[in-house]
Amino acid sequence: MIRVAVDGMGGDFAPQFVVQGAVQAANALDNLNITITGPEEAIKNELCHHKVAAGKISICPASEVIEMSDSPVQAVKKKKNSSLSVAIQLLKQKKVDAVITAGNTGAAVVASTLNLGLLPGIKRPGIAVMIPSLRGITIAIDVGANIDPSPEHLFQYAIMAETYAHYILRKKKPTIGLLNIGEEESKGTDVLQETYKLLRDSGLNFIGNIEGRDFFSGKCDCVVCDGFSGNVVLKMTESILELMVTVIAKEIGKRPVARLGAFLCRSAFEAIRKETNYEEAGGAPLLGVDGVVIISHGISSAKAIKNAIKVARDSVAQRLNDHIIEGLNDHLRTDAGSSPASIPAPKANL
Amino acid sequence: MIRVAVDGMGGDFAPQFVVQGAVQAANALDNLNITITGPEEAIKNELCHHKVAAGKISICPASEVIEMSDSPVQAVKKKKNSSLSVAIQLLKQKKVDAVITAGNTGAAVVASTLNLGLLPGIKRPGIAVMIPSLRGITIAIDVGANIDPSPEHLFQYAIMAETYAHYILRKKKPTIGLLNIGEEESKGTDVLQETYKLLRDSGLNFIGNIEGRDFFSGKCDCVVCDGFSGNVVLKMTESILELMVTVIAKEIGKRPVARLGAFLCRSAFEAIRKETNYEEAGGAPLLGVDGVVIISHGISSAKAIKNAIKVARDSVAQRLNDHIIEGLNDHLRTDAGSSPASIPAPKANL
Repeated sequence: MIRVAVDGMGGDFAPQFVVQGAVQAANALDNLNITITGPEEAIKNELCHHKVAAGKISICPASEVIEMSDSPVQAVKKKKNSSLSVAIQLLKQKKVDAVITAGNTGAAVVASTLNLGLLPGIKRPGIAVMIPSLRGITIAIDVGANIDPSPEHLFQYAIMAETYAHYILRKKKPTIGLLNIGEEESKGTDVLQETYKLLRDSGLNFIGNIEGRDFFSGKCDCVVCDGFSGNVVLKMTESILELMVTVIAKEIGKRPVARLGAFLCRSAFEAIRKETNYEEAGGAPLLGVDGVVIISHGISSAKAIKNAIKVARDSVAQRLNDHIIEGLNDHLRTDAGSSPASIPAPKANL
Repeated sequence: MIRVAVDGMGGDFAPQFVVQGAVQAANALDNLNITITGPEEAIKNELCHHKVAAGKISICPASEVIEMSDSPVQAVKKKKNSSLSVAIQLLKQKKVDAVITAGNTGAAVVASTLNLGLLPGIKRPGIAVMIPSLRGITIAIDVGANIDPSPEHLFQYAIMAETYAHYILRKKKPTIGLLNIGEEESKGTDVLQETYKLLRDSGLNFIGNIEGRDFFSGKCDCVVCDGFSGNVVLKMTESILELMVTVIAKEIGKRPVARLGAFLCRSAFEAIRKETNYEEAGGAPLLGVDGVVIISHGISSAKAIKNAIKVARDSVAQRLNDHIIEGLNDHLRTDAGSSPASIPAPKANL
């Protein structure tokens, strides 16, 4: 039985969609037990609208709420009884195996890092997102936890993303690309040039630098990037579908014949909407912390929450974190002669 | 009469499309005289296929070619007689008023900076690109000339972009946004936090931090960004139309009814293609150098070259660089009490 805590008050539509998603997951997925954290009355009021097998969902009371606008560090320090902090505490105390939150991303990173700590050998956590491409899903890491990474951080992100792609996305020998402004090894900042060397010499399936245009073409399975560029890319990607819909609707709306045409195309448009929908990806794993934490989008629907719970369950079932530690140790052993000296120390703490 | 030099061998389809674009510009635009640089025979062979009013196009011989794959600094140093270097020399010697190249971007930046120097007071040049948005064109600066900018560099980019938006794009009081990973002043690196303060206190029409999602929505007229993120954004943007076309064609192709629908929608799709086409923007001005230099895309068509020539002509006619100097001086005067101390020195040289 895999036990998952869901932050009942995280997200723009909490607790409604969070509870709905938990109910959908409980009814659809085997081998799963869900605890929802939050104000007992509010969660109960939402739960009572749904049917769910007895004992599959329980509530763990938490009186406070971390708002989207709260400063992450302040909020985590002050709101010890928030729905997020209580969920993370359950994970720390091994009362659950994973946490899902659609709340304040910064607070989720801070609470997880401070309370759970990092996996042995990992220097910084990274947020990984699943970006739809022409050849399936591309994982991008990091997209906002670490805006000034060292080469070692980026190298460890590659190992974590590769492990995730292999064990969760079932890719055989996942390819790794480094986000840069040109293909040549000499491109980009000193940090990126150093990271290129670490990846090239690592035995990972490193295909070299990739550029902004390669995200959507699906040139590689995993894109390693600094949290600043990654965040910009993520937010652009999220806005693209909206832009496509707006532009197409505007131009078609002007033309009666095209309006008929669009009606005939609707099943094709629906297929595209589904392929590019963030709901299917089911949230962004916070990799590197000592525990399974999945961060969902603030605007998560019930379906997105359900899929995030599924990803959390799979990550626990596949022993993702054990494999990350193994992967890291493999590379440390391979590099034993040169490693401690050639990998520079991290530049800043979280 | 405005005199423009076109790098005859710059671009993936040079000299053919470059010469065609020059001919189109010569025939369509008034008050213009064009010099094409490059191997005389090759340019002549292309020119002889076209009709153009006598005396509107001439050739300036240049025996060497800087390739797309050449290292910029090496190429500029060694290939003194390249079509690019000769064009820049003509500008330096005031024999022309502007240069257009669709060749190696890095070489264009290096050749311009070394030979022309920077405008008085400007610390670093920046490449500005025009990105289509839901509310018209957004200028993004920098997109690759300066991957480690100081707050002063970014502040000067804001002044240059505002001047361009006002005098060339005819926007009344252009709005400025700073690319960051959140709206709050406290977000992002120290450099961005410092830049935020400079912009906030400047009297420019600064609307604050913008995020990746705001590019396409057209939240502001000018986006100031570091050259790394800007380059990633630019290359993603360029790939989006291709992605849209591929995805839509794939899904529609599967469905006979949708194929008919798409046929009926074709005028709408054509309008979208035109709106988002890089050819219309006419190239990226390299702002901050002491001369008008327009860098066109390597895959530029004849039409893109023609439009780049038009932008160059307008920049000269509007005395763009004089206005940039005025803008810079206005802000230096306004900040006279605090300026030299509050604006930190640049961190690195080109």
